[in-house]
Amino acid sequence: MVKLTEEVKESLKGVKNIFLATCSRAGVPNVVPMGAFKLLDDETMLLSDQYMQKSLSNMKENPRVAIAYWGEKGGFQIKGTVTLHTDDQIFKEDVAWVKGIKPTLNPKTAIVMKITDVYMVKPGPDAGKKIL
Amino acid sequence: MVKLTEEVKESLKGVKNIFLATCSRAGVPNVVPMGAFKLLDDETMLLSDQYMQKSLSNMKENPRVAIAYWGEKGGFQIKGTVTLHTDDQIFKEDVAWVKGIKPTLNPKTAIVMKITDVYMVKPGPDAGKKIL
Repeated sequence: MVKLTEEVKESLKGVKNIFLATCSRAGVPNVVPMGAFKLLDDETMLLSDQYMQKSLSNMKENPRVAIAYWGEKGGFQIKGTVTLHTDDQIFKEDVAWVKGIKPTLNPKTAIVMKITDVYMVKPGPDAGKKIL
Repeated sequence: MVKLTEEVKESLKGVKNIFLATCSRAGVPNVVPMGAFKLLDDETMLLSDQYMQKSLSNMKENPRVAIAYWGEKGGFQIKGTVTLHTDDQIFKEDVAWVKGIKPTLNPKTAIVMKITDVYMVKPGPDAGKKIL
């Protein structure tokens, strides 16, 4: 399992939107901005679904995902494999977290992403380099 | 073929980075920020590859792509199918355009994306709605 470094964790701080890419079984990619995400630990991200349609149906067909972002402290691409939670303790904690930020939001799914790879995305000769 | 509306074209203006999602034949999504893009006409985008690795190998395996962005005037997800150009007039025009912006850049591939679908990505009940 991959553990995020301090550099990657720092770069995520203050980022408002990450872009979540999924892929249907037929091979059609989908990518959307999303704001409700956090690290559960150095190997695991939580993505909270409030409004997903195609992203959710794709993850049910194919659990491989990739996220990318670019903030004030740079950005990375992080790949992983997800499990979907709708009626367990993980989901309850997701609902409590999201409602603590904005009570009107109604999470549908807690998406737990185990991180498998991290890549550089900064333009230049190192773009695409696997760092973790 | 899909023709972008004024609303979608306006939302692209001033956007520095779009996020390009591709998918390998094995179904692994990839997503990266990229800055060298423009509309060729209302049905066609040009993406210029300077540093791509996995995005490029994925597009050679699977021409379906999706881009998403969020700027001052909102954002959308645009899906399409690409052709790759490395030694024709389209590529020459791509090189001239990119070098006109920054002479030190060296385009490797001109990616011509025929637009097939456009979706809303703004958070809320309309997120994921197909508009074109």
